[in-house]
Amino acid sequence: MKHLLSMEELDKDEIISILHEANRFSLGETWEPKDRKFVSNLFFEPSTRTKCSFEMAERKLGLDVIPFEASASSILKGETLYDTIKTLESIGVDAVVIRHDQDHFYEELVGKIDIPVLNGGDGCGQHPTQSLLDLLTIQQEFGTFHGLKVAIAGDILHSRVARSNALVLKKLGAEVVFSGPTEWFDQEYLNSGKVCSMDEAVESCDVLMLLRIQHERHGATSHLSPNEYHQQYGLTLQRERRMKKNSIIMHPAPVNRGVEIDSDLVECGRSRIFKQMKNGVFVRMAVLKRALETN
Amino acid sequence: MKHLLSMEELDKDEIISILHEANRFSLGETWEPKDRKFVSNLFFEPSTRTKCSFEMAERKLGLDVIPFEASASSILKGETLYDTIKTLESIGVDAVVIRHDQDHFYEELVGKIDIPVLNGGDGCGQHPTQSLLDLLTIQQEFGTFHGLKVAIAGDILHSRVARSNALVLKKLGAEVVFSGPTEWFDQEYLNSGKVCSMDEAVESCDVLMLLRIQHERHGATSHLSPNEYHQQYGLTLQRERRMKKNSIIMHPAPVNRGVEIDSDLVECGRSRIFKQMKNGVFVRMAVLKRALETN
Amino acid sequence: MKHLLSMEELDKDEIISILHEANRFSLGETWEPKDRKFVSNLFFEPSTRTKCSFEMAERKLGLDVIPFEASASSILKGETLYDTIKTLESIGVDAVVIRHDQDHFYEELVGKIDIPVLNGGDGCGQHPTQSLLDLLTIQQEFGTFHGLKVAIAGDILHSRVARSNALVLKKLGAEVVFSGPTEWFDQEYLNSGKVCSMDEAVESCDVLMLLRIQHERHGATSHLSPNEYHQQYGLTLQRERRMKKNSIIMHPAPVNRGVEIDSDLVECGRSRIFKQMKNGVFVRMAVLKRALETN
Repeated sequence: MKHLLSMEELDKDEIISILHEANRFSLGETWEPKDRKFVSNLFFEPSTRTKCSFEMAERKLGLDVIPFEASASSILKGETLYDTIKTLESIGVDAVVIRHDQDHFYEELVGKIDIPVLNGGDGCGQHPTQSLLDLLTIQQEFGTFHGLKVAIAGDILHSRVARSNALVLKKLGAEVVFSGPTEWFDQEYLNSGKVCSMDEAVESCDVLMLLRIQHERHGATSHLSPNEYHQQYGLTLQRERRMKKNSIIMHPAPVNRGVEIDSDLVECGRSRIFKQMKNGVFVRMAVLKRALETN
Repeated sequence: MKHLLSMEELDKDEIISILHEANRFSLGETWEPKDRKFVSNLFFEPSTRTKCSFEMAERKLGLDVIPFEASASSILKGETLYDTIKTLESIGVDAVVIRHDQDHFYEELVGKIDIPVLNGGDGCGQHPTQSLLDLLTIQQEFGTFHGLKVAIAGDILHSRVARSNALVLKKLGAEVVFSGPTEWFDQEYLNSGKVCSMDEAVESCDVLMLLRIQHERHGATSHLSPNEYHQQYGLTLQRERRMKKNSIIMHPAPVNRGVEIDSDLVECGRSRIFKQMKNGVFVRMAVLKRALETN
Repeated sequence: MKHLLSMEELDKDEIISILHEANRFSLGETWEPKDRKFVSNLFFEPSTRTKCSFEMAERKLGLDVIPFEASASSILKGETLYDTIKTLESIGVDAVVIRHDQDHFYEELVGKIDIPVLNGGDGCGQHPTQSLLDLLTIQQEFGTFHGLKVAIAGDILHSRVARSNALVLKKLGAEVVFSGPTEWFDQEYLNSGKVCSMDEAVESCDVLMLLRIQHERHGATSHLSPNEYHQQYGLTLQRERRMKKNSIIMHPAPVNRGVEIDSDLVECGRSRIFKQMKNGVFVRMAVLKRALETN
């Protein structure tokens, strides 16, 4: 049984192995568990991409999905997450995917339940399948991570993937720089010597990873208007023209069009934004297989 | 790839072909796509009939359904409908059914996405599968549309089907008259010379199509009480007795019992209300097949 | 066609037959209907256990599930429950499971619709599959009901299962006693001579059935704090130690930890709480089979 909780728990070999498996799925490889397996997707926060992508991955693996509607569950009667998961386990669910607004929600589960938990995003914490699909997209593009320069730009502080993507990209041999409003960097970033202006970032990077402004997580929103943000920190049409020939644009979506990125660039030649979503299914097939085959 | 957006875009031959296909499904004919196909139903407005009917039709065709819960989607984070559909397309969804409170919601999609869109109702606009199931029910009853007199009665202004049913019925050879409160007719109707009293309508028609009072779409509701409406414009027990021998009663449902129609008439011998729902599944099988087989 | 509406409508032989069938399912027996069957689960109140358990049972029987989202249904447009069920029947649904906040909701359906209704809990009324899974759990433990002493403790008044479990247990040969705050007993209970203190109850019973405090059903909540309730009427660590050697603890869940039962006892050796949930799937398979095989 293998949980997927955070990128930090995965060593380099495991990451490479998941990406390899995901890539095989992208090429049409199939896999189904020997016995019938049941999974449930518990999304306590809004989601289209991650939820639908897991639903698709599950069906492609021939898994049975037990619907779970968070807004109509016994959580409303005060039931704990642990008791809810234990219930699903008792009923015969073989694995759960959970998105939750609480950072590290999985800590109350690990070691106490006997089915794998796949983290579909925890608060401002982690979003490991997003990180993995980002990595797959880069690997498919460049074949390697060595020597690549990746710029991560935007709302670093509230992002579920900025910090863990940075760590894992460095582990895999890439150089990482950051850009965005200073108020969204903590001291650790500022001291790293890797923070640069958006203009520097776009001109030098091979991969530009834009982050979504997480309006819904901001206690206080930025003091900038959307258009001011776009001009100072976003990918404008002008900035895109100064990008290196083969460099690519990524964004976890949903995109705030005209803020992080000019609306006309969302589907431009360099954009891998919808390719990322496509890869999301393959990555989720890989981690579901990993969770269930050793169950 | 064939969208189904409005009745106006369908020519007479296409309508007849869809009805023919639907009728074959009603007789037990089956069809499944060669390859596995995934569909998603995006309902941004409440629905039992249309939603469940599409879900049934999809399963009867052996399609895989990717659940989409509008109230827990990224639409809440401000994502556009276009980006949502493009996401589903990227994830591998082969067709989408959409109900939306905005008239002509599909205009921002057509020509820009590569999967068929089936309109499950747009604002006060259209509801083509409802129109088609109405037509199938009439065709099964009378064998033809030629020479039939169809009375459409009630909330013409807010109805998704009144105008397009009228147009298509005339195209297919039927005569159409209208009845209902004058405040719910625009000048075009009033000038058509086809508006008559409810008493005239019930006595002369072969098909009485009652419309639902769309309380949820009314800026200002009618000044009449439900009972006053019933007496002046509804199908009372007395009026039903004056209907022609083989004439039938239709209603798209949900019925406001005792308003548009006396509660005791909902399941009377002339009523085809539940037959319409039954036919809804066959019509949706036909349009899903049409959308997917040429995909 | 066999509804499952209340425990009272089942005679002793039927109960024994359902338990027998459920036990066979628990041992790995399988059953599938000859023809494809469609079911729908209509939950108008929050639920995790019952809803997911039915979903699991349905999939294990190879049934097709038509999703029904109460919060996005035409009930919001004022449609009656009868019209909703009649709609589903028209669409081709072969059986419905309904949870509803109204006692005896099924009375407006029975005799008027042609598909079986399975009661998933009605207001403060009944919850027959919960009663049946309680019985199966006791039967698996003791092999018989004869001579067993069952103590039902807690919020008798608002419980969906207390009264019907008491009746059926007596019918099957067990002795039943009650414990809990006097304000939650009506005169019938108080006159029965079967009400005792929690200390007496735990020391003498073979089965301790704790009830959930139904905060969501209380007009006025108890005047006791959760901790006061726990000390006077709950299963404390001290009380558990005084239970008979082979006696077991049951609770329908969700558990209010530290109120009805000390949190540490939820998964103690005597607890059958998660076993009950496991049995819920088998019982629901049995009643679905019963509903559909004679359809």
